[in-house]
Amino acid sequence: MLYRLYYWPGIQGRGEYVRLALEEAAADYVDIALLDAKHGGGVPALERWLQGADVARPPFAPPFLQAGRQLIGQTANILLFLGPRLGLVPRGAAGRLWVHQLQLTMADFVVEIHDTHHPLGGSLYYEQQKSAAKRRSQDFIAHRLPKYLNYFEQVIDRNRARGPWMVGRSLTYADLSMAQLIAGLQYAFPRASRARMRRCPRLRRLHDAVFERPRIQRYLSSGRRLAFNQSGIFRHYPQLDA
Amino acid sequence: MLYRLYYWPGIQGRGEYVRLALEEAAADYVDIALLDAKHGGGVPALERWLQGADVARPPFAPPFLQAGRQLIGQTANILLFLGPRLGLVPRGAAGRLWVHQLQLTMADFVVEIHDTHHPLGGSLYYEQQKSAAKRRSQDFIAHRLPKYLNYFEQVIDRNRARGPWMVGRSLTYADLSMAQLIAGLQYAFPRASRARMRRCPRLRRLHDAVFERPRIQRYLSSGRRLAFNQSGIFRHYPQLDA
Repeated sequence: MLYRLYYWPGIQGRGEYVRLALEEAAADYVDIALLDAKHGGGVPALERWLQGADVARPPFAPPFLQAGRQLIGQTANILLFLGPRLGLVPRGAAGRLWVHQLQLTMADFVVEIHDTHHPLGGSLYYEQQKSAAKRRSQDFIAHRLPKYLNYFEQVIDRNRARGPWMVGRSLTYADLSMAQLIAGLQYAFPRASRARMRRCPRLRRLHDAVFERPRIQRYLSSGRRLAFNQSGIFRHYPQLDA
Repeated sequence: MLYRLYYWPGIQGRGEYVRLALEEAAADYVDIALLDAKHGGGVPALERWLQGADVARPPFAPPFLQAGRQLIGQTANILLFLGPRLGLVPRGAAGRLWVHQLQLTMADFVVEIHDTHHPLGGSLYYEQQKSAAKRRSQDFIAHRLPKYLNYFEQVIDRNRARGPWMVGRSLTYADLSMAQLIAGLQYAFPRASRARMRRCPRLRRLHDAVFERPRIQRYLSSGRRLAFNQSGIFRHYPQLDA
């Protein structure tokens, strides 16, 4: 099956969690963000689905995925759909639900990371909310960052199937997302995350194991993966770091 | 099957989305928040699962649901699990994914509503972040509230099966959550939400249709449903309203 991934051009953002799953599975997909508007890509391609009056089940926001006649929105929901198709979930229903639960907890974490630089809302620039961002970041670094990282470190530790992954013996989409999240934190908060990751050997190992996988390596060197930048969810403002 | 719902005592919070599904289906469940600590309830009952070193798949935060040997966290994930068991989803996989997508969009909405009174983080009291809360609320009322409500109004409008619901001909857990969300907004932002809801006749009808259902009525008058209050997600601070 050919998948079409719709996401904002120019940033990794939430689209990247879906891309990593598609790349790891060597799935047949078109990344609409990499096409220009003349060739059916760019923002007009997104708007056609977000604003088209004929879309029966419109997504609220990107990313969304077109798979045959289905249009699926919400990052975690897209991965819930793709997981069994791409071989990135365990066999049993309980294991799949647990993978999804971890993904949803990561989604909460991602919102909190985003809000460190935009605590007063998305309609204001960062420059208009710098002092609020500083306060929110202090709270994040002191309380939320350690709470989330300790939690996920514990999840790996309690996985009875010893190995680098969070669930069972095999890689799942939650592992791909976790590695991406760690990479993003290291970009945005190099000092705070280095200090904290020192106490999380299992997360470091998971991160490395994901980014060493041959297909992920190939993706990184393909030119298709955008670099982190100051328009995405993970932004590096030195004054917000520890 | 007997379900055990674990959530913080004293507030509706995210537990309420699960309660409404269990109540509508007349499911056999114990609400641990309504038991005192002596009888296996209260905060110690939560902590046993959140902090117990023997919990193989620990939830990050309440609510979580115990169903036989499964422990399931994340509100939307609990509803994903309960939906088919309680008869609160359509038959087909695509319809179920769409219901889940709507639930996840509501979860995003709920985070934004919460952050109107806590934009700088949960470790500070509201009183310590009043001016930031005022600015965040202005952004919320001007941009986010209309965007979300217009979206969900449109979802009902585009449901070809005419009726009060968002998906197909029958009530789903997403409808129950939507009604709860509207009720919460009317409590927290009575002025802003009244002005906005005037343009959303389908959402008003959905809200009323949910709260008129006999089992929901029985729940409301049972004494089991807590009132909205100033410790929950929806808080009424007149200075934050329009």
